[in-house]
Amino acid sequence: MSKRIAGPEIERLIQLLAKVPGLGPRSARRAALHLIKKKEQLFEPLSAAMNEALEKVRVCSVCGNVDTADPCSICTDPRRDAGTLIVVEDVADLWALERAAAMNVRYHVLGGTLSPLDGVGPEDLNIAGLINRVAEGGVGEIIIAVNATVEGQTTAHYITDQMADMGVKVTRLAHGVPVGGELDYLDEGTLAAALKSRTVF
Amino acid sequence: MSKRIAGPEIERLIQLLAKVPGLGPRSARRAALHLIKKKEQLFEPLSAAMNEALEKVRVCSVCGNVDTADPCSICTDPRRDAGTLIVVEDVADLWALERAAAMNVRYHVLGGTLSPLDGVGPEDLNIAGLINRVAEGGVGEIIIAVNATVEGQTTAHYITDQMADMGVKVTRLAHGVPVGGELDYLDEGTLAAALKSRTVF
Ligand SMILES: [Zn+2]
Ligand SMILES: [Zn+2]
Repeated sequence: MSKRIAGPEIERLIQLLAKVPGLGPRSARRAALHLIKKKEQLFEPLSAAMNEALEKVRVCSVCGNVDTADPCSICTDPRRDAGTLIVVEDVADLWALERAAAMNVRYHVLGGTLSPLDGVGPEDLNIAGLINRVAEGGVGEIIIAVNATVEGQTTAHYITDQMADMGVKVTRLAHGVPVGGELDYLDEGTLAAALKSRTVF
Repeated sequence: MSKRIAGPEIERLIQLLAKVPGLGPRSARRAALHLIKKKEQLFEPLSAAMNEALEKVRVCSVCGNVDTADPCSICTDPRRDAGTLIVVEDVADLWALERAAAMNVRYHVLGGTLSPLDGVGPEDLNIAGLINRVAEGGVGEIIIAVNATVEGQTTAHYITDQMADMGVKVTRLAHGVPVGGELDYLDEGTLAAALKSRTVF
């Protein structure tokens, strides 16, 4: 029994809100109603912020971070050590590490992990970009900060193999990251400690 | 340590997303990243749907429902029994009752409940509008479908008192609604049963 309750514009808004991570069909309805009720305080500013972000957000062509500038503000920050790259799966992991604020270095976002079962090979990740950055020189250390999952570790080994003859030190996060855990859910202290006691791969 | 991670436009988007019910600060960051990654599939359509809804959504001047037409599609539907009004606290409750699809009638949205402690009096709710609709004639029954909370029941009694001399039958939802429960979270079967066995107030 799915009677159309509200106009098609509201139904469509609910449908799309339900696809936002963290919201389901029921919470999407509540979210839509809340937005409609808080039109001036929330709905209009949020809509404007989305338009603004849509127009300005770029993926950094150097590291894969998202920002409103390309290269991103991390890649162009002269106070950061450009000789060390932290390699992460996802921008969310980069943000999590930045919140830990343990190292003032640069990043490389792979955009996922190797997963032969899902048909994700090296060419589907930003690994060629990483090899290029190292080949250009100036990078002394790569810290592989992928999730402690099977796919993450497979990816870490693959990258280590690729770096074998490039004269770059490859390290990984210290144990301290829970096995099977996701970086983005860890507290800042754990992330900082794991970075500090990173080990040679 | 709150370093600015992304551009101010992204920070603002995250800040506003965190105010959407169902999302908190952490899930707002994840939601923002997901939107940025699914730009064509989700971010652009959602932004367009929000612009569209912002432009077209109206609060019905008759019943308080939200729709893209005023009066709303429920108030102008000739197949609905205009002689019965279901009185609800909130549009979310109206939608929940419509999903139960137990009665083909009209509604009246109060916009809250009486709450002397919070300074919410009769003049803050759409009670005058309800009295006017009944005074205009044609309404034979009012079904009070407020939440089974103290404030809800206080509101129900107040409305019943106001209707005392107006020649209208006042009923309420049958027991079956859990005490302290919220209508919007109930399954459709429970709501349909509670409507069916409503009792005289
Ligand atoms: Zn960058
Ligand atoms: Zn209406």
